[in-house]
Amino acid sequence: MTMPDVHQLHPTEDQLSYTFGGREPLLRVAPGSVIELSTEDCFGGKVRSVDDLPSQVCVFPYLNPVTGPIAVEGAEPGDALAVHFADIRPARDWAVSTTFPHFGALTTTGTTPMLHDALEERVWMYEVDVERGIVRYTARRSDYTVDLPLDPFHGTVGVAPAANESIMSITPSAHGGNMDTPEIRRGTTLYLPVNVPGAMLAIGDGHCRQGEGEVCGTAVEAAMNTTIVVDVIKGAGLHWPRLQDDTHIMSTGSVKPLEDAFRISQHDLIGWTRELTGLDDLDALQLVSQAGLAPVGNVVDTNYTMVAKLPVSVLNGARVYDGIHEHLAGIGRSHVG
Amino acid sequence: MTMPDVHQLHPTEDQLSYTFGGREPLLRVAPGSVIELSTEDCFGGKVRSVDDLPSQVCVFPYLNPVTGPIAVEGAEPGDALAVHFADIRPARDWAVSTTFPHFGALTTTGTTPMLHDALEERVWMYEVDVERGIVRYTARRSDYTVDLPLDPFHGTVGVAPAANESIMSITPSAHGGNMDTPEIRRGTTLYLPVNVPGAMLAIGDGHCRQGEGEVCGTAVEAAMNTTIVVDVIKGAGLHWPRLQDDTHIMSTGSVKPLEDAFRISQHDLIGWTRELTGLDDLDALQLVSQAGLAPVGNVVDTNYTMVAKLPVSVLNGARVYDGIHEHLAGIGRSHVG
Amino acid sequence: MTMPDVHQLHPTEDQLSYTFGGREPLLRVAPGSVIELSTEDCFGGKVRSVDDLPSQVCVFPYLNPVTGPIAVEGAEPGDALAVHFADIRPARDWAVSTTFPHFGALTTTGTTPMLHDALEERVWMYEVDVERGIVRYTARRSDYTVDLPLDPFHGTVGVAPAANESIMSITPSAHGGNMDTPEIRRGTTLYLPVNVPGAMLAIGDGHCRQGEGEVCGTAVEAAMNTTIVVDVIKGAGLHWPRLQDDTHIMSTGSVKPLEDAFRISQHDLIGWTRELTGLDDLDALQLVSQAGLAPVGNVVDTNYTMVAKLPVSVLNGARVYDGIHEHLAGIGRSHVG
Amino acid sequence: MTMPDVHQLHPTEDQLSYTFGGREPLLRVAPGSVIELSTEDCFGGKVRSVDDLPSQVCVFPYLNPVTGPIAVEGAEPGDALAVHFADIRPARDWAVSTTFPHFGALTTTGTTPMLHDALEERVWMYEVDVERGIVRYTARRSDYTVDLPLDPFHGTVGVAPAANESIMSITPSAHGGNMDTPEIRRGTTLYLPVNVPGAMLAIGDGHCRQGEGEVCGTAVEAAMNTTIVVDVIKGAGLHWPRLQDDTHIMSTGSVKPLEDAFRISQHDLIGWTRELTGLDDLDALQLVSQAGLAPVGNVVDTNYTMVAKLPVSVLNGARVYDGIHEHLAGIGRSHVG
Repeated sequence: MTMPDVHQLHPTEDQLSYTFGGREPLLRVAPGSVIELSTEDCFGGKVRSVDDLPSQVCVFPYLNPVTGPIAVEGAEPGDALAVHFADIRPARDWAVSTTFPHFGALTTTGTTPMLHDALEERVWMYEVDVERGIVRYTARRSDYTVDLPLDPFHGTVGVAPAANESIMSITPSAHGGNMDTPEIRRGTTLYLPVNVPGAMLAIGDGHCRQGEGEVCGTAVEAAMNTTIVVDVIKGAGLHWPRLQDDTHIMSTGSVKPLEDAFRISQHDLIGWTRELTGLDDLDALQLVSQAGLAPVGNVVDTNYTMVAKLPVSVLNGARVYDGIHEHLAGIGRSHVG
Repeated sequence: MTMPDVHQLHPTEDQLSYTFGGREPLLRVAPGSVIELSTEDCFGGKVRSVDDLPSQVCVFPYLNPVTGPIAVEGAEPGDALAVHFADIRPARDWAVSTTFPHFGALTTTGTTPMLHDALEERVWMYEVDVERGIVRYTARRSDYTVDLPLDPFHGTVGVAPAANESIMSITPSAHGGNMDTPEIRRGTTLYLPVNVPGAMLAIGDGHCRQGEGEVCGTAVEAAMNTTIVVDVIKGAGLHWPRLQDDTHIMSTGSVKPLEDAFRISQHDLIGWTRELTGLDDLDALQLVSQAGLAPVGNVVDTNYTMVAKLPVSVLNGARVYDGIHEHLAGIGRSHVG
Repeated sequence: MTMPDVHQLHPTEDQLSYTFGGREPLLRVAPGSVIELSTEDCFGGKVRSVDDLPSQVCVFPYLNPVTGPIAVEGAEPGDALAVHFADIRPARDWAVSTTFPHFGALTTTGTTPMLHDALEERVWMYEVDVERGIVRYTARRSDYTVDLPLDPFHGTVGVAPAANESIMSITPSAHGGNMDTPEIRRGTTLYLPVNVPGAMLAIGDGHCRQGEGEVCGTAVEAAMNTTIVVDVIKGAGLHWPRLQDDTHIMSTGSVKPLEDAFRISQHDLIGWTRELTGLDDLDALQLVSQAGLAPVGNVVDTNYTMVAKLPVSVLNGARVYDGIHEHLAGIGRSHVG
Repeated sequence: MTMPDVHQLHPTEDQLSYTFGGREPLLRVAPGSVIELSTEDCFGGKVRSVDDLPSQVCVFPYLNPVTGPIAVEGAEPGDALAVHFADIRPARDWAVSTTFPHFGALTTTGTTPMLHDALEERVWMYEVDVERGIVRYTARRSDYTVDLPLDPFHGTVGVAPAANESIMSITPSAHGGNMDTPEIRRGTTLYLPVNVPGAMLAIGDGHCRQGEGEVCGTAVEAAMNTTIVVDVIKGAGLHWPRLQDDTHIMSTGSVKPLEDAFRISQHDLIGWTRELTGLDDLDALQLVSQAGLAPVGNVVDTNYTMVAKLPVSVLNGARVYDGIHEHLAGIGRSHVG
């Protein structure tokens, strides 16, 4: 193994991006490079106490900043960009979650409007203890506290969309974006369809942890120091983001209603299984039907995200993308230690 | 501990039921009783080889037979029926899965009609090895096989509905029914809202295992020999079925679209958390948002089912329904061994 | 023309029904009969002033009473029941509409639960002037009034469901039920699939008028005096209710989500068009796509209802069900005058 | 009345736009100006016979071209752009409709994927007779023909989106876009929220007519010669496009699922009614519930569109946006004759 290029990407506040697409790259790297980067939290770091209401300290559309875009040399439309997460580490000893007026799964919103007034806007501060691997929940209206496992991931990872679109960073879709699935954690490789030369990768929205569905609208939001390894799979022909970790392959779908996100993710996983095993459509459908998992990403964003997940153990040794996940994971471990 | 009553319920074919509601009980038991019962598979045992197409050997509406109803003495509207699954054991050394015309998440159906012809109807036979704890998947159009873990559960468990309704056994709703969640496995206690005197419990649709979502429309379907322990929680005031195992409490929602099933299950779990912890609505919302899981039950039946799941570890020792799960699990273990 | 049999059906309060299915007939009639019947409003006549809040004066599940069932001789599963509405006339000089806690399209409900408190329950009384053909809207929090056209119809018309089901009268589905489409007005013939011998027709939920969607959850609710003519179409093989008036044929779909109700109604209308014109599937799809209408029934009930509507003028003279609509309309006009 | 400025906008093929947002204006005009413009059909004029399959003659993303953007002086974020359609006239004596693989309400699509193969791609050519006011449908697999009323409108009208987004012209959303509602016909004024200075109006996708829902995915598609009058309403604070004609005010919602599009449109119409009448929320809800219509726009695009429609007759003379519709209609009539 030759030593990979290692790049740093630590944007200033005015370098942050709020869309996928329509931006010049902050960094250009070769396939196989390691990138150490930092990301702000979804509030741009402006919510720092229970008195910092997001609707007062943040200004639309300057929400959910992402670090990037990063142009990866040689990435062309029709390829897949592979992004391996070698490390994701909270940058501070606190994190924050909130309700937000007209946002969340159980409240009147701009797209599911009701005649109710908005729910109360409330902020919860979490203590983050990286050494012990916990975040501490503290209730606001009682003295209830409980420690929850630290499980850092990035809610938002994506590339420039197709068709000259430029899409807000809070939207998940075929280009990735704000999928808010806890699966994008350390040790996972994310495969994204490339739509423009260089792919234009951007990353943000670090979460110390999150329940499936993100029902209140936000996770345990945190700035992160993150190390990724990127590569290009020529001609992969992806339609939707896929993921792989050491035990599972995963497909995603991000759309409304939620059953269509389920359909997209399952349909894609069935196709992927077919490619990897030689099964025909219905035999692959049957295998996924009995062996698959279907964790929810989010049910709060402008699109909802579902993940379809299959143990690699049922693939009888099929090699996924020529072993790129294992290759990038090896680079990542060498680098991060 | 006094010895519980032990009952047997092994219905003949013409005693099987195809609805929840509108039926006289086959058995009456006291709270705290153990019941050993047998259930047929969803095809009534009529699909026994790859040549037995369900649309030819089964006759609507005689699908998805359930064993029951069982009247539990003292159960009254407003109470909850607690059903602990002490054992669920495949009755045969084979099981079966199929596609079925106009049924499934990825095909034209009666409720999501398309202008396509129906998909091919195909049957898969599974070998079941209870000792080794596996079921064997065998492809139909290639020689691909793979062993999957045996994980038996009942897809269909419910009581008589409210409002004098009688509902097909293939429908999941507030009365339980065909929820098709793998969580109803050995060791789980299911809580069902009681709508009529005696509750009128019925059980069927055994699955050797199933992926989340049951995307092809059927699981690894099997006749089962099952042991349950039943009890009554007076005045529990449930709106939707809840579950509990040794590590999690769970709420369910069964409705379309899938996001509404998600909303129901999360909303119920938040309310349950509030009751157990004394948190207010928003503090409970926050805790569930960060600590909860949201496994999919089914996305194929007449209603879709979502489960919302919270680790009991975050409840700081709160006692759920006065410890009835632990109590029934103890009876179950004593009886089953 | 021979004189048709004429029947009266004016149930007492304790004869009212709250389900489709599971009831003995109140009346048996021959095909071709005229039936003069009376229906109570959806509140059972108990909301008579702005101070009669439905949640206080009504008791679940005794809501939305229907008059029937009526057994029609010779109707067998696979046939269609034709119900022509010869007259629908408000029985009183007032009508009523309300909000209702946890009911409506723009409020937290049992199936789209939010963390908001219920909206205010409010009652509006309408003056009904049959002679002038108007109902008068009067605001509750200002002195705003406006006259709206009287357009009486029945929100709820259906038969016993298939599969031994018994379904609450507030639910619309394949058996008809609470579709809440203004199309079921005087001069319309409704075709319902027959599931049990005699069909078991029941009718209720008169509306003096209603906007499309019934967004607040209730229409201008009124007791009605109604005259129908019933007949049987042997072997019609309907899957969903259809309607016909002098200018349009219409298909319905009642399910969630709303796009599936749209799909069902359009799919059925395309099939019906194909049968009537000899067009193939795609040519019928094209004709319906350019010439069809898609009025909303309700977006508030346990299922949502869409109607798909095609002008008979594009059918090039095709004869619908051998002219039964014209035949029954003739009987109706002769009788009602 | 002073004579308005009159502008011409007849873009060449390489001036056509395929997004809303991200483009420099082709034309700048003052408020009150008349613009005579031409638009290509959604296929860019490339489908000219039944043998021109769109998937072969068109190249993604060069579909659904729009003419524009047009910058309107003085339009600022927070304002509304008023666009009055004074004339919409088919440019040719033929028009075209098609199925398109993976597009439409009754077929497997990219967002509602099924395991079926795509439906047949088929083209229908329509004769257009502007003098007689008809388009002629001709079946492809039989000799069935029928004349349908000509009812020209623009399926796609919108402005640059908020938040620096650039959105494909086939997507309808809060910025307008591909709403595909027949209400945008001659005589209608469309109100669009302004998100960027100049608003950046663009128009395309002329339809000779269309059924509600556009179920096959395309209308009777035609190039158009269109005359509009534009104006600016300062501080209007719109969230979603609204429309007005001589008899109705209308709100729109474009999102999935369809019930959320319904909710948005009804919620907006209730708010508008409240502003115009002084009714409170629930009194306005009640009035809209009984007097409103809910025509479907499309159920095929990347978002679905619903319209909520209220007769101005129930507004008791309330003046809408200070009479701007009547003012622009007057200019339009003077100009078009």
